[in-house]
Amino acid sequence: MMNTHLINHTVTAVTSASQLLQEAEAYLRQYGSELAIADKEIAARLSQIASEIEATGTYTHTPEELAYGAKLAWRNSNRCIGRLFWDSLIVQDARSAQTAADVARAVFSHMEYATNGGKILPTITVFSPTLDPDKPRIRLWNDQLVRYAGYEREDGTVLGDPVSLELTRVCQGLGWRGRETAFDVLPLVVQLGQEPPEWFEIPVELVLEVPLTHPELPAIEQLGLRWYGVPFVSNMRLEIGGLHYTAAPFNGWYMGTEIGARNLADPFRYNMLPQVGALMGLDTSRESTLWRDRALVELNVAVLHSFKGKGVTIVDHHTASKQFSLFAERERQNGRIPTGRWSWLIPPLSPATTAVFHTRYEDLEQKPNYFYQKTPYGEQ
Amino acid sequence: MMNTHLINHTVTAVTSASQLLQEAEAYLRQYGSELAIADKEIAARLSQIASEIEATGTYTHTPEELAYGAKLAWRNSNRCIGRLFWDSLIVQDARSAQTAADVARAVFSHMEYATNGGKILPTITVFSPTLDPDKPRIRLWNDQLVRYAGYEREDGTVLGDPVSLELTRVCQGLGWRGRETAFDVLPLVVQLGQEPPEWFEIPVELVLEVPLTHPELPAIEQLGLRWYGVPFVSNMRLEIGGLHYTAAPFNGWYMGTEIGARNLADPFRYNMLPQVGALMGLDTSRESTLWRDRALVELNVAVLHSFKGKGVTIVDHHTASKQFSLFAERERQNGRIPTGRWSWLIPPLSPATTAVFHTRYEDLEQKPNYFYQKTPYGEQ
Repeated sequence: MMNTHLINHTVTAVTSASQLLQEAEAYLRQYGSELAIADKEIAARLSQIASEIEATGTYTHTPEELAYGAKLAWRNSNRCIGRLFWDSLIVQDARSAQTAADVARAVFSHMEYATNGGKILPTITVFSPTLDPDKPRIRLWNDQLVRYAGYEREDGTVLGDPVSLELTRVCQGLGWRGRETAFDVLPLVVQLGQEPPEWFEIPVELVLEVPLTHPELPAIEQLGLRWYGVPFVSNMRLEIGGLHYTAAPFNGWYMGTEIGARNLADPFRYNMLPQVGALMGLDTSRESTLWRDRALVELNVAVLHSFKGKGVTIVDHHTASKQFSLFAERERQNGRIPTGRWSWLIPPLSPATTAVFHTRYEDLEQKPNYFYQKTPYGEQ
Repeated sequence: MMNTHLINHTVTAVTSASQLLQEAEAYLRQYGSELAIADKEIAARLSQIASEIEATGTYTHTPEELAYGAKLAWRNSNRCIGRLFWDSLIVQDARSAQTAADVARAVFSHMEYATNGGKILPTITVFSPTLDPDKPRIRLWNDQLVRYAGYEREDGTVLGDPVSLELTRVCQGLGWRGRETAFDVLPLVVQLGQEPPEWFEIPVELVLEVPLTHPELPAIEQLGLRWYGVPFVSNMRLEIGGLHYTAAPFNGWYMGTEIGARNLADPFRYNMLPQVGALMGLDTSRESTLWRDRALVELNVAVLHSFKGKGVTIVDHHTASKQFSLFAERERQNGRIPTGRWSWLIPPLSPATTAVFHTRYEDLEQKPNYFYQKTPYGEQ
């Protein structure tokens, strides 16, 4: 659900007052229609919004509007295979957070609540919005709230997660120091407006981690692999009715292949297939032995086995595909056309064994939605 | 390379004389440029073509133009991962074939030549073209020259290959009778113009088949699985310079996953994963044991092992992906932009372990090319 092999930045210009009212109206109409709110109630709310925009240049979502918008944004996320559960998203309203410390407190509260001892609860925490997405009031610099640092060694190899090389350097520049293991959790980095970013060590008790073991291959445990239990995406912009929530970290739970067939397997990530193949005693001298494929399956077996063993919610790609088909079916029953991006929905392991591989969905962008944002550090 | 999960018919209207000359010129210019033929030679050839079109309404490719066009059509085939070898295609000119028996003879000659005792030679046999692709002079009714029949049993299950159900019924209607095994090779069905089709039993010695065995799982052999050695695609239209070769069967060699991860594995094809899982003793009671993925890998190991054991050319998906990257690199070196359709290029087994998964190609349609045609039987 979180793979980032396709990154497209949707650039949104600053919204004028009339555009904003238009966007607000489009959202409020959908909100009213889906929740069966009387037209005149929506009309009254829209006139209130119009006055607020006229007076202040912007408007404020009610907690209910915010919550439903966040859910719709999930339902409209064409890359996500886990959307069957869109309506169960728990929305934490943190728009009152003023300082970086406030933000960190709300983030940590989200982490504890959503992790829930392993019985993961899909949750989003929404901070104060902006009208101009290029001028966020609040940004989290982390891609995900929990991610492992990556350190470039002198010989050019990487210790840890290569995807974090740049953010790790940035954090070190801010004064953070990791233990220099392959699994150092990066700190939370919060930026308010154009102020310098502040970093916060994530309390260790908030980071549920799962050491990898395999039901039949004890040698897997010797690799010392682990992964964090909850994928908290923290770099996307939530757009509802013309307002841009540039800090709105959310989480679902993992589909096993995200860890086992990408994060730990990709040659440009932890690149573990050669080591797994070796400990399985496979003939790695020729591709045609399919040693990569065999190692990949067992790495994924280890991920699912370990998460389940520790009581941490996870879904295998076969079950996730069935859940997605059910989601699509329910969308049709509700008179909506299920949208999706095939290249993201197909799992990276045995895709043709799942129904999504054999189905085409329209990749239509609808709002509310979650959008990529420019990386706030680095090349600026 | 031959999967047909995405079928799009490109409808082409009848070509006028001026359109035809335009198409001819576009092709001849490319032909001249790529083969470094002097401009004045191409200009002379074009004026000859113009006269021929004026006199007869159409024109005739020289054997060299035909051969290079067929190669370019391969190079432009965005769905094909095997295009590194486009320039080595062997082109058999069978435009003089007049009768269905002539066509069958040329097809059989192609099969023997290209099969080459297992050392497969990429080959195309090109029959007489038409100006109106909806009025072919010659059509082969087979999707592939060798394909297994499918018989619907009284209980609704299928014996053989479900993909062939309709063609099997058609062949039976024409008087053909199969042995009613799971691997009956369908006859060749040839249609000239609007005449009734004629069918020809394919000589058994022309059909190289590979019984499946596995290097470590002897029980695989007990399944009695087999597959034909050469994928001869016979239902596509080759378009070069405005001429439509509606009968132009061609072959490369298999990428193992086409057999092991689709033909034998898809639930709507031979659906062998449950049986492979059972003989491997896997726990098939829960998806999270990844028994499907494990069975799939071993089925693919069996395919590669068996083909190699019998000396029949085949390529694994890792090697094919590397070859495709090399193809793309060479295209760039030659000043061309490599095109491709991602959804077809990625293999159906462990796609993220291959470079094509992490690369995007433009899916630009260029001519010459191979196009789908309407099925000539059935719903008419």
